[in-house]
Amino acid sequence: MLVPKGCLGKGPPDGKLAFFNWRGKVVRDFTVLAYDAYSEAFPEPFSFADPLAGVGARSIRVALECKKSGHLFVNDVNPLAMEAARLASQRNGVHGKMSFHAEEAGLFLAELSGRRERVDIVDIDPFGTPAPYVEPALRALKDGGLLSVTATDTAILCGIHPQVAFRKYLGVPLRSEYCVEVGLRLLLAMVVRKGLAFDMAPRPLFAHADQHYMRVYCSFELSASKANLAVGHLGYVLHCFKCGHREASPSAKERCGRCGGTMQAAGPLWTSDLHDSYFLKRMSASAREGPFLRFLTILDRASSEVGLPPYFFKLPKLTAALKSPGHSPSKVVEELSKIGYRAAVSSVDPQGIKTDASIEEIIAILKASNP
Amino acid sequence: MLVPKGCLGKGPPDGKLAFFNWRGKVVRDFTVLAYDAYSEAFPEPFSFADPLAGVGARSIRVALECKKSGHLFVNDVNPLAMEAARLASQRNGVHGKMSFHAEEAGLFLAELSGRRERVDIVDIDPFGTPAPYVEPALRALKDGGLLSVTATDTAILCGIHPQVAFRKYLGVPLRSEYCVEVGLRLLLAMVVRKGLAFDMAPRPLFAHADQHYMRVYCSFELSASKANLAVGHLGYVLHCFKCGHREASPSAKERCGRCGGTMQAAGPLWTSDLHDSYFLKRMSASAREGPFLRFLTILDRASSEVGLPPYFFKLPKLTAALKSPGHSPSKVVEELSKIGYRAAVSSVDPQGIKTDASIEEIIAILKASNP
Repeated sequence: MLVPKGCLGKGPPDGKLAFFNWRGKVVRDFTVLAYDAYSEAFPEPFSFADPLAGVGARSIRVALECKKSGHLFVNDVNPLAMEAARLASQRNGVHGKMSFHAEEAGLFLAELSGRRERVDIVDIDPFGTPAPYVEPALRALKDGGLLSVTATDTAILCGIHPQVAFRKYLGVPLRSEYCVEVGLRLLLAMVVRKGLAFDMAPRPLFAHADQHYMRVYCSFELSASKANLAVGHLGYVLHCFKCGHREASPSAKERCGRCGGTMQAAGPLWTSDLHDSYFLKRMSASAREGPFLRFLTILDRASSEVGLPPYFFKLPKLTAALKSPGHSPSKVVEELSKIGYRAAVSSVDPQGIKTDASIEEIIAILKASNP
Repeated sequence: MLVPKGCLGKGPPDGKLAFFNWRGKVVRDFTVLAYDAYSEAFPEPFSFADPLAGVGARSIRVALECKKSGHLFVNDVNPLAMEAARLASQRNGVHGKMSFHAEEAGLFLAELSGRRERVDIVDIDPFGTPAPYVEPALRALKDGGLLSVTATDTAILCGIHPQVAFRKYLGVPLRSEYCVEVGLRLLLAMVVRKGLAFDMAPRPLFAHADQHYMRVYCSFELSASKANLAVGHLGYVLHCFKCGHREASPSAKERCGRCGGTMQAAGPLWTSDLHDSYFLKRMSASAREGPFLRFLTILDRASSEVGLPPYFFKLPKLTAALKSPGHSPSKVVEELSKIGYRAAVSSVDPQGIKTDASIEEIIAILKASNP
């Protein structure tokens, strides 16, 4: 199902009235899997707030497809978009569990938190940066709630305008071949840090990305002591553009331990795991049941990443420098594992190798298996 | 006048109903001077929002004493406090220009911004950290508006709990003899950075502190390009606990340029001026007119600080190390000026010397003038 039943062919949305993102299908598919995984442990249906709902595609899918969806607060500042969403909800028979609002997103969320109608899940999916909406979203979240956040300003997160990244994401990005992973970690760190200021301790659950978006899922528990501990998961990814060495560090060190060159520091960003193993297992189980079998590859790769360093090595970049032909990523992972390293194919880049081996050791393997 | 006419003796506040901070008098005196200085250039009266108003002491003084005070939105989540404020406003004859609200502060501010009743000045004066209120306050501000922010968690800003400082103020503090100045710069940087995320470029106007509070005044102009430039005013204060050398730097360098020891980095914080010279001139002019003559010393010291580095040297600390008797701060400033350095007595510490001279040069002067 590309979009909610009846929401496209016969009724709204009309492109002239409000924005409907065709490319958002995969993101919405993952949303359904993630919310199902999150709510599995709940006895009660979960409440949901969608402050930047557009024509409501995500909300209607959550209402229709999530096993435990309860009341949904759907909001868009554009009343025409809300009319379209209301009509679509009626055609899909889910209008009974939805309320529609046409407020500025920050005010809508402040009303949920100020009047103590806090919800289990809030989703932030704006055009561009989500930075202005994260604080109000956290305020609208129940203790233990889940926040999902999409960024579509991927060029900023990948380091094209470092000042803008510093302003929106509270940290310095890194223009490198693994900028997508660094971008995801900057995005997550921004979300986490806004929570930490409210004594909300984070538990990152899942993150994914492609060229057009980066998206993180993180739950939060009210605990000042756990929030203090979480500060230890924020740090820097250091990269030496002279020799290609990279490392994670709690502070922004200046010298490369391998060649003595200058290290460029990205961060502060989230240096621990982007994914939670148990959460991924539950997402995979849901994916096997439904029409989402093709997502198992990404979920499996995400599982293999857990415990590995916060960066990857891009094979074509290494082989080009060696003037060697292409290598199979899974073969390289196998070779690294054989000699005792942990390694996995990156979930955000099929040509990316995540490993605790150093760049020398990877190059040695590439040379050894050079035809 | 200790508190607004009639607000204390005959009527509210009753300590049992709501909180009234006796120690807040000096802070409120400065507030009147600063708002007068800010609004001088305006042809129209300024609007004002006081989201954490308590029994309204500040709002009533602004209404009574500021030359151009217009409509005042007064809010406290405690309806009893608002009753006291309303009564006090009636006794003082200023209820006509005030509206009273009893909402959670974030919701109250979101309503101002969401319904486009944005105001010229917002004041944030909570018990403890102002961190959770700064974003909503910025949203409620008109383009070019002024935000004044008080922090009373001075121990956090002075580095007693660095993790908590990192969570609330987005940066690392420094436990040193000039921690008050570093704390002010961390507080300002937090306020500035939350504005930068909204493309709001800051203009710091005035900052002051004592043992119980730190307070900053900063105006904001909507401009993404100016916001990018402002990123350059954020950096680090580096301190060597081995030799006492200190410096400002755009990045967190590790080695002391003087003795090779390890530098401790505080920041990111605001490394440029805390005060605006022209603004201080206007505050001083108001102070000369009114009953605030005794504030001229602090305002004059603040003026002398402009252009000097973001730290100071505490005389008793230096003389104790030298086992020398006390020196007069103004005498040391004079000596430094004689040999071509810029120097001033710190506005936040009468024993603090701000100068572009190094610690060696200050010590040389102390030794030379040793009785």
